[in-house]
Amino acid sequence: MFCGVDIGGTNVEVGLVSEDGKLLDREGLKTGKFYSAPDLVLAIAESILRMTKQSRQPLEGIGVGCPNGRGDQGVMVEAANLPFKGIVPFVDLFKQYFPDIPVALANDANAAAIGELYYGKGQGLKDFVEITLGTGLGSGFIVNGKAVDGANGMAGEVGHMVMIPGGRPCGCGRSGCLERYVTASGIVATYNELCQIHHHEPEIGNYKDLCDLAGQNDPVAIEAFGQAGKMLGWGLANIALCTAPSHIFLYGGVALGAGDYLLKPTLRSFDAHLLYSYRGSVRLEFSGLLGRNGAILGAASLPRQLR
Amino acid sequence: MFCGVDIGGTNVEVGLVSEDGKLLDREGLKTGKFYSAPDLVLAIAESILRMTKQSRQPLEGIGVGCPNGRGDQGVMVEAANLPFKGIVPFVDLFKQYFPDIPVALANDANAAAIGELYYGKGQGLKDFVEITLGTGLGSGFIVNGKAVDGANGMAGEVGHMVMIPGGRPCGCGRSGCLERYVTASGIVATYNELCQIHHHEPEIGNYKDLCDLAGQNDPVAIEAFGQAGKMLGWGLANIALCTAPSHIFLYGGVALGAGDYLLKPTLRSFDAHLLYSYRGSVRLEFSGLLGRNGAILGAASLPRQLR
Repeated sequence: MFCGVDIGGTNVEVGLVSEDGKLLDREGLKTGKFYSAPDLVLAIAESILRMTKQSRQPLEGIGVGCPNGRGDQGVMVEAANLPFKGIVPFVDLFKQYFPDIPVALANDANAAAIGELYYGKGQGLKDFVEITLGTGLGSGFIVNGKAVDGANGMAGEVGHMVMIPGGRPCGCGRSGCLERYVTASGIVATYNELCQIHHHEPEIGNYKDLCDLAGQNDPVAIEAFGQAGKMLGWGLANIALCTAPSHIFLYGGVALGAGDYLLKPTLRSFDAHLLYSYRGSVRLEFSGLLGRNGAILGAASLPRQLR
Repeated sequence: MFCGVDIGGTNVEVGLVSEDGKLLDREGLKTGKFYSAPDLVLAIAESILRMTKQSRQPLEGIGVGCPNGRGDQGVMVEAANLPFKGIVPFVDLFKQYFPDIPVALANDANAAAIGELYYGKGQGLKDFVEITLGTGLGSGFIVNGKAVDGANGMAGEVGHMVMIPGGRPCGCGRSGCLERYVTASGIVATYNELCQIHHHEPEIGNYKDLCDLAGQNDPVAIEAFGQAGKMLGWGLANIALCTAPSHIFLYGGVALGAGDYLLKPTLRSFDAHLLYSYRGSVRLEFSGLLGRNGAILGAASLPRQLR
């Protein structure tokens, strides 16, 4: 049995996961309630102890997924959406409470990739890419059965590939990045642009509304997903040329919410942009973790790469 | 002592390389003289035996670099510029003459990357990317000290990243691929386009002439390299986000010929397009194999990854 801890800007999810990927128990915390990382880790440790006491199984490892996590160093670095500034040594903080249990950490996209490897469609695969689509676009590269950290510990920041030089301004300080067109806010922005072009009153407040509108066959909403898919398929076809994965898995709230409205145009564009000699050797599909507490499963899988 | 065999469309180079990367002896063959792969391998084997007899050192391995080589299978697949069609089992062919010596094969870009790792600036590095610039743009990814083959054995075809949808037609059947703008013929095409725009009579026949013209401070030639560098820096900044290499090395005849005329605008564009948080963690520079019989050194390094 492993414990997965997913630390996000709003919520912290803590869960116990069996060897074969069943969620045995879980608890949630509000990130904003904690003013320091040691306070947060103390509360998480109490939560883990409470749950393990009830489960009566031995705990084999703890995995922590967080934004800007550096797996090689076991720390989180300057995560913009979290109240803890600077470098947070999460692995060391957990080790204070669990000195005899392996503790591993990764950024959330790498955690999703490793979760896919152990609990999702990545089982038995050696080379694949996990794409997480949410407020940002993250990715985790699996090469030869191992997650790639890269020399700076930040491999997989493909959401910031510049697709359109001089395009939409990005929070990273540059413009035209892939994630500005294919994340929740990006697709909503495209919808609003299309409404202006069509002199059509925008009917939505957020991404969920846009998904609902597409579900009602609204042509402007469907076109917004079509444009996002075009950009995403193009970007993924370029990415595939680097490490030649056998699969690219789409994961995250944006993928879950949009379903085929996003997947179908993405597949069309991926096929159109992929190098012909790669055709048939790279499959693009939804993650096996979608709708399955993937963040906890991903975090819980991390200590398994330490073995 | 290792033997490196570089099989190209025009020439085959065979060389003996010492453990520390010195070229001890070499011979060359004309690819076009051989009507079948077994004939070619027989001639290469004779050449190797001749050279090893003279050198009196034991041969520890043979490495073969070739276009469309699949390292995992030891074969060359449908290489367009070679007279041997279909799947050529080079490793097995060499094994007939050298049954007791390790034989390894890779595509030429991966061979250059592995050569960089053992004999060039890659010594001691774990994560880097080798870019080969010639008639095409190839690349080899080193992740955790190992060359990436990918699921299809063809990782690193980044010359076919689509940069400009609907851009210049590419030999791959699509359009707007990176290599159409940054290889020898691509940069010459840009020069010719610029001449048309400036109503300027083109003064060159080939890439070498263009390099000479830039050396004479011809502003149109310099502008052609400037545009190529802009595109190359943009593409490399996108690639860097996948595996977060510590270095990207530029190798090949185009890089050697152009020198700073290409490197300087490439560096400017790379800096402008690279994600800010990656700055300082990825260095872009010329390969340590440039002008050093890199193709033979690269091939000779391949059996060392088998150890």
